[in-house]
Amino acid sequence: MHTQAVSSRIMPLNTESLFAARMRNMRPSLVRELLKNAGGPGFISFAGGLPNPKFFPAEALIAATEAVLREDAANVLQYAVSEGYPPLREWIAARYKQRFGLDIPIEEILITSGSQQGLDLLGKVLLDPGDVVINERPGYQGAIHALSMYQPRFAGVTLGDAGLDVDELGRTLQTHSGRAKFVVITPNYQNPTGITYSDANRRAIADVIRRHNVLLVEDDPYSELGFAGETAPPVRAYLEDRGVLLGSFSKIVAPGMRLGWLVAPQEIMRRVVIAKQGADFHSNNFAQRVLHRYLISNPIAEHIARIRAGYASQARAMIAALERHLPPDIPFTRPQGGMFIWVTLPEAADSMAILKDAVAQKVSFLPGAPFFTDGDGRRYMRLSYSQADEATIEEGIARLARVVLQHLDAPAAEHAAAG
Amino acid sequence: MHTQAVSSRIMPLNTESLFAARMRNMRPSLVRELLKNAGGPGFISFAGGLPNPKFFPAEALIAATEAVLREDAANVLQYAVSEGYPPLREWIAARYKQRFGLDIPIEEILITSGSQQGLDLLGKVLLDPGDVVINERPGYQGAIHALSMYQPRFAGVTLGDAGLDVDELGRTLQTHSGRAKFVVITPNYQNPTGITYSDANRRAIADVIRRHNVLLVEDDPYSELGFAGETAPPVRAYLEDRGVLLGSFSKIVAPGMRLGWLVAPQEIMRRVVIAKQGADFHSNNFAQRVLHRYLISNPIAEHIARIRAGYASQARAMIAALERHLPPDIPFTRPQGGMFIWVTLPEAADSMAILKDAVAQKVSFLPGAPFFTDGDGRRYMRLSYSQADEATIEEGIARLARVVLQHLDAPAAEHAAAG
Repeated sequence: MHTQAVSSRIMPLNTESLFAARMRNMRPSLVRELLKNAGGPGFISFAGGLPNPKFFPAEALIAATEAVLREDAANVLQYAVSEGYPPLREWIAARYKQRFGLDIPIEEILITSGSQQGLDLLGKVLLDPGDVVINERPGYQGAIHALSMYQPRFAGVTLGDAGLDVDELGRTLQTHSGRAKFVVITPNYQNPTGITYSDANRRAIADVIRRHNVLLVEDDPYSELGFAGETAPPVRAYLEDRGVLLGSFSKIVAPGMRLGWLVAPQEIMRRVVIAKQGADFHSNNFAQRVLHRYLISNPIAEHIARIRAGYASQARAMIAALERHLPPDIPFTRPQGGMFIWVTLPEAADSMAILKDAVAQKVSFLPGAPFFTDGDGRRYMRLSYSQADEATIEEGIARLARVVLQHLDAPAAEHAAAG
Repeated sequence: MHTQAVSSRIMPLNTESLFAARMRNMRPSLVRELLKNAGGPGFISFAGGLPNPKFFPAEALIAATEAVLREDAANVLQYAVSEGYPPLREWIAARYKQRFGLDIPIEEILITSGSQQGLDLLGKVLLDPGDVVINERPGYQGAIHALSMYQPRFAGVTLGDAGLDVDELGRTLQTHSGRAKFVVITPNYQNPTGITYSDANRRAIADVIRRHNVLLVEDDPYSELGFAGETAPPVRAYLEDRGVLLGSFSKIVAPGMRLGWLVAPQEIMRRVVIAKQGADFHSNNFAQRVLHRYLISNPIAEHIARIRAGYASQARAMIAALERHLPPDIPFTRPQGGMFIWVTLPEAADSMAILKDAVAQKVSFLPGAPFFTDGDGRRYMRLSYSQADEATIEEGIARLARVVLQHLDAPAAEHAAAG
């Protein structure tokens, strides 16, 4: 870049040589890049896992902000304890008690900057390069990204309609004995598949975990979004000292507030708090105090019921549209909650090539590849129904199905060329 | 903990074996522990680097919250881009232009969860275990903590009244050539010493940096707090492609909002954004939008002028009290801005032992040790004047001086026993 003569006293900078080894194979996340470039008038996105803004409680948050700043600005706006605002942690504990009868002391709850930060802190505290993380196959791409920074190897375990293959989980733990630090799962309305682990599967997973020197990390951001109401208890209910649980306010209040939480046994929590102090001292205190005031001043159960009903209706609309526009031999999941449907295309399909054409037709989704750590995923599509209304879902699926059918009709040679 | 018989199928958990190597020598920060335990009625704290809450603009933040949520809740409360809210980044760029004539494109600015997160992200992107970080001696303990998570070796360079010893900096860079990734400094109203680098020292540092394959990280949270107005330009002004600059809204607006920023050349910024996505997707969007609205709707220059005048008066009060209550052979710094005074006690003094007795007398400060990475620091005290009013400062310094004088009068044997 510099055109002037370089003085002999100046050493040219070799920026590449300064990066840590962990950055070598890092690429910007496909999801993020898509969020940046796809859009504009008439564009229909089934790509991002974004909550529907019609459920954001703007007026109630204004009232909560006014109340906490008028009453206690000197503390609301000051530095605060790393663990998080104690009454907010008490609210979380009370909710676990109410929903599942679980007793979680607030000393085992840390407020995080979204549950994504919970994954990052666990990577920092638990992973040395070469350690093994056992994850779902397919699994949440945000967890794969956060944990990849700590250079683990991933070992995927097959995810079926009722949860994880527990025999395969046992064999995988055996294979990686001594290097496997934790198993990370999303038992409710999983991202990307939308499937939910049965209660029997949860108990069976707990049994397997107890037979190994390993932790279970249960990433549970969609927990409250069951269309029919409550889910089975978290696996943590059967594990105690080896269960870590991540939760989020992003899907029941608002993701822009970046608040979630991490539940961990005290010996692990002590280390996580040290990592939290290094990372950002504490989570946004202003947002914590506003959120807490909102939660205790409003009928949250009714608010959550409205979100559940809204997403249930949008999910029904997407299932109906997929049945109408796709041939019956293309299977897709029928979620009981959450935000996602997972479509399995024929073996030869290339969802990345389909995405490129779909974006040209003003509709998007996420291709399957980022959810696999072994290079697989080419034939899958993740569809999110959370953001669009029912009529838009019908129109978007009609568009998308036309693109899919064109690809499936094309000769095999063309698929090969697209790959 | 479990008293029931353990089934043969259950493996006892060895939690210790699951932690990453980086956690092995980690202890909770002394600062944090002090913030938890020292306090109560009549307690006077000179320990924490906390802004004075009388400068928190509570009513203006209520108005800003109401405005942004009424106008644009669907975006304010939604997920957002990792780099941060573009108009907030434009505000930061405009301020650098206005203050120093610096042109910084917004692509080189990332909004962070406080400038502490900037340090964490730089550690993540740049440091492999065993790499060398060159820091000030003494240096900011929060940076030492954040960076320690990435297992570097620290090499301290002596800090004098006008800045860093540039000859020593050159020799240290030579010694650690190939492993030194960056030099981290706080040129304005340094934490812990309160000293400010002269413009000549800044230019000399830039000259040395340019002769090596290394980055300069300039941690600048107190930048706006000069008692007499503006500071010299940041070292980044003389460096361009090898300068990284960290800023913070904690000291000019409120730390509870946890917002700061990181300025870096684009090749480094690309990697930092990938790390940011893994860490927490993006900084709190609600707080970013409220802060931005506050900044563009209020006379910020006047607000900052009030903070400067307030801290200047508190600093004068503390300097006067130290002159009154301590013997003249105990030197201390006379800051031109910021929040801190650094006291150098006689060689035999033990500031940790003094702190224990001071807390019993209801006054606190920070001992010097956490600001050194080589085990030194025993004879120093960091005093913060930011939180207390002038009368409280006089009373607190009188109390503290009594404790200090008792310790200095005690026989050497007693000091040895306390260590």
